[in-house]
Amino acid sequence: MATLLDEIMEQPDVLQGLLDHEWPRIKQVAERIKAANPKYMVIAARGTSDNAATYAKYLFGAVNGLPVSLATPSLFTLYNQPPRMDGAVVLAVSQAGMSPDIVSVIQEGNKQGLLTIAITNNTDSDLALAANEVLDIRANQETSIAATKSYTASLMVLALLSVALSGSQKDFETLATVPNLVAEVLSSCGTLEQRTERYRYMEQCVVVGRGYNYATTLEMALKLKELNYIGTTPYSSADFRHGPIAVVEEGFPSILIAPHGKVFADMANLADELIARRGELLVLSNDAALLKRADLAIELPAAMPEWISPIVSIVPGQLFARHLAKARKLDTAQPRGLKKVTKTT
Amino acid sequence: MATLLDEIMEQPDVLQGLLDHEWPRIKQVAERIKAANPKYMVIAARGTSDNAATYAKYLFGAVNGLPVSLATPSLFTLYNQPPRMDGAVVLAVSQAGMSPDIVSVIQEGNKQGLLTIAITNNTDSDLALAANEVLDIRANQETSIAATKSYTASLMVLALLSVALSGSQKDFETLATVPNLVAEVLSSCGTLEQRTERYRYMEQCVVVGRGYNYATTLEMALKLKELNYIGTTPYSSADFRHGPIAVVEEGFPSILIAPHGKVFADMANLADELIARRGELLVLSNDAALLKRADLAIELPAAMPEWISPIVSIVPGQLFARHLAKARKLDTAQPRGLKKVTKTT
Repeated sequence: MATLLDEIMEQPDVLQGLLDHEWPRIKQVAERIKAANPKYMVIAARGTSDNAATYAKYLFGAVNGLPVSLATPSLFTLYNQPPRMDGAVVLAVSQAGMSPDIVSVIQEGNKQGLLTIAITNNTDSDLALAANEVLDIRANQETSIAATKSYTASLMVLALLSVALSGSQKDFETLATVPNLVAEVLSSCGTLEQRTERYRYMEQCVVVGRGYNYATTLEMALKLKELNYIGTTPYSSADFRHGPIAVVEEGFPSILIAPHGKVFADMANLADELIARRGELLVLSNDAALLKRADLAIELPAAMPEWISPIVSIVPGQLFARHLAKARKLDTAQPRGLKKVTKTT
Repeated sequence: MATLLDEIMEQPDVLQGLLDHEWPRIKQVAERIKAANPKYMVIAARGTSDNAATYAKYLFGAVNGLPVSLATPSLFTLYNQPPRMDGAVVLAVSQAGMSPDIVSVIQEGNKQGLLTIAITNNTDSDLALAANEVLDIRANQETSIAATKSYTASLMVLALLSVALSGSQKDFETLATVPNLVAEVLSSCGTLEQRTERYRYMEQCVVVGRGYNYATTLEMALKLKELNYIGTTPYSSADFRHGPIAVVEEGFPSILIAPHGKVFADMANLADELIARRGELLVLSNDAALLKRADLAIELPAAMPEWISPIVSIVPGQLFARHLAKARKLDTAQPRGLKKVTKTT
């Protein structure tokens, strides 16, 4: 049976499979979206898939000029007061496709006569059956309860959809480099397991990032919580700096997601502030100077435009969360408290 | 000079002032919104104001059928790739009204020819000057750096705007009971300071709620972090239950925001799970049976429809965060790391 580590290592193949096999379907769905001429997009998702939706919010907003509203599923179920979504296209992201609240957002979209799209790893699921269009994330069976390859596969499908909407051949070619970049970061993490031992007795931490990599921030924090049961709070650097930074005393660990890009200068400034507070600094970056100042430096590939970086940056985050759980002698396949299929009403 | 406690106690008067003096302006602005016939609303905010925006997301969605998209301000500033917001009305919530990124969302709204509205405590601020319409939260000067009365005042303005849009006299009358409900909860918290001492050495905790009170969950967690520098992670009960609940070992403190309403059954079930894990339970509720099962029970007023409950429920949360800081001998007026005026680009 595949271990969590196997599934993390499988990601270059899964991502390549989407480029090779799902792209024609994604282009078809993009044509339907263009024909619907939406004013904005509603995305319904939970947990790891909600973090993928956060990536979509930045990507569709910046690249396609399309505002994204993350749905509040309880309005559709518990409150039974769904908003009128005139002018929207409705998208749901769910690995298993079985959560009634997410399905109900799609069903309400159908009822309101809107185009509905499911992005899922289970094309026979309730969600897939409910939606007008289905995009398969092609992650194969994910045995470990903590989602890894299904997350990066969801990001890749969303990125391909953005490219299909913009029609940029150049962006497609950039995206086609992602499987190699993920393979590169995996092979550069050879010593990470040993270096992670430093955090064997860490009791809590924060994860900070901004912009495109706010999604990475949320997802790395979630993996740490799911696999290690330690208090891990994610922050946008903009919010963290104004208040919550007060938690950082001498030795308090902060994980910074800081690849090059438009938010890099802001993240590098934050690193200065954290060093001034004598905090412990874990940095994921492709900036040599910043990495040198970290207590744990995790190097990201150099040639990586910011908009694709979340698909690559999360991978060492997954490894760190897994290695830490191993160091703490925890079960990485069946973490306590975690269920593979979420059924929220 | 007013202390944090003074400002918390001032809330019934501030809320009454909005009912007495701001309601006519709010009705005028609601008429402009109706005339614009928006398909959805974009709200830009940060920190405490962003938590107020989360309340607005449930309220406008459920009561007014109007979907809300929380803006990603960095798209308007650092990335300089703002989305096209055709069909939207653009609203910003900011107590001081000075953060360049929030102002830039309003400026972009103006440029795109949309109706723009500022909700602020500073009607001379950059934000107020930029917006087409300004609603004053009338919280007077807030001396303490941690926002309390400016938060509940923002919620009240948003709730009044929702009522003005729906035109329901009954809802207006319900909302008019809020100042008394807040006074009631303040007077019922007489022993809370002493009871809070139990948590003098608490090192981390989670705050859990859902639906309308997800905003309360976020805001109580933020106050605890700002005033006490302890790791405090907020969760929707739907997300918490599927993974992060794993952090709850024997004695781990969970704070549940659980007034009666559509999400109450879900919260009561969660309490069962936490008790089974032998966790420590702090409960804010108006359900006698649930309160009896808590290690710290904070009673909320009985007669309180769920849609107004966030304006009331946060108040004992503010008191708890303040009393805990006092017990820990921390400075409640000028917490370290916290700035009153946020200027994010």
